[in-house]
Amino acid sequence: MTIRYPNGTVFHANATSTRPKLVQRTTTYGKRGMALEDEINASNTYYLEHQVAVIHKKPTPINIVKVDYPKRSSAVIREAYFSEASTTDYNGIYRGRYIDFDAKETRNKTAFPLKNFHQHQVEHLRRCVAQGGICFALIKFKVVDRVFLLKASDLFNYWDSAEQSSGRKSIPFTDVEQIGYEVRYKMQPLIPYLDAVDNLIDDNLNSEKFDVKGD
Amino acid sequence: MTIRYPNGTVFHANATSTRPKLVQRTTTYGKRGMALEDEINASNTYYLEHQVAVIHKKPTPINIVKVDYPKRSSAVIREAYFSEASTTDYNGIYRGRYIDFDAKETRNKTAFPLKNFHQHQVEHLRRCVAQGGICFALIKFKVVDRVFLLKASDLFNYWDSAEQSSGRKSIPFTDVEQIGYEVRYKMQPLIPYLDAVDNLIDDNLNSEKFDVKGD
Repeated sequence: MTIRYPNGTVFHANATSTRPKLVQRTTTYGKRGMALEDEINASNTYYLEHQVAVIHKKPTPINIVKVDYPKRSSAVIREAYFSEASTTDYNGIYRGRYIDFDAKETRNKTAFPLKNFHQHQVEHLRRCVAQGGICFALIKFKVVDRVFLLKASDLFNYWDSAEQSSGRKSIPFTDVEQIGYEVRYKMQPLIPYLDAVDNLIDDNLNSEKFDVKGD
Repeated sequence: MTIRYPNGTVFHANATSTRPKLVQRTTTYGKRGMALEDEINASNTYYLEHQVAVIHKKPTPINIVKVDYPKRSSAVIREAYFSEASTTDYNGIYRGRYIDFDAKETRNKTAFPLKNFHQHQVEHLRRCVAQGGICFALIKFKVVDRVFLLKASDLFNYWDSAEQSSGRKSIPFTDVEQIGYEVRYKMQPLIPYLDAVDNLIDDNLNSEKFDVKGD
């Protein structure tokens, strides 16, 4: 199993079971401008190959209208449209738990606009929380290159408040700094967001009883 | 929340918390020929609306090559190709647990050909089992219209045995009858496969220690 650094050189893992803590955030400035989605996908590949978690981005949903079947070659989609996802983009399993989240980024410096989320994504997260899932959003403030994990219940609070006519339609950066779990860039994985999930799970165990449906 | 019977008439749920046991299997012969995928999707919709579970089919993965942006209308995909999924088709959460499975059907009467599964799907299921997920295959023998849940560990046994040159490349129907959990058609939901998952979870709790990664 060959793991590579972003520059293509092969990574030789030390034979230790603990996750490597390799670099300071200052060394990753070269990553600036990389889309959050790509950063998370790279991190998920790392987690998968190191048997830490199995978390995948779902394919983009498409409505296919017309398909050609040229002779001796594979089917070609000739007309299709992007359709709206009914769920979040990422889910999977980590430490025996169902993980579900979406990733959003903003160039706004002072607040995270809630219009980045869609109603159906928030509803999906609510359903997953009700089933006992670990649900959150990864949000990135691009200008300062900082990523935070915002747990779903906090997102719901701002979302519900925004639905009132007088409610503000964004989450202030200072609030995110305070209630979010900051995820600092590393090299392996690039966005070690499961460290923040560890904290989230611990906090949940301390403060919440999961509402798990029995039979 | 309006639930409809397959013929379009509205279903009025009784105000009971137990899942309805409405009809015998004999009443669903009209469903013969419906694709297993559609049957499962309908069941998942039922489970979602009744807050039993949150399980979705993942979108079909597509490689998009060319997109047109006509004026005043939405983007049109003009060239794209089907790509191979790296995971199974279905996952989600039920009773606080991560659920992961694939659905396959065969017209074979005497055995389930293992070529219906792809190597990467089996590998994905192995990874999810290692993380403590509830993993299985739903397999349908179309000619006799019978559906079975085959737990992943049983699938692995036949898969590994088939990889030996002398190993048989299919699972005998009589084996599936014996080791699988039969899922009998109902109306609400059409394929009540989570009943079989209940049995699977109970059996796991009795016989297995989940290999859940701690920190």
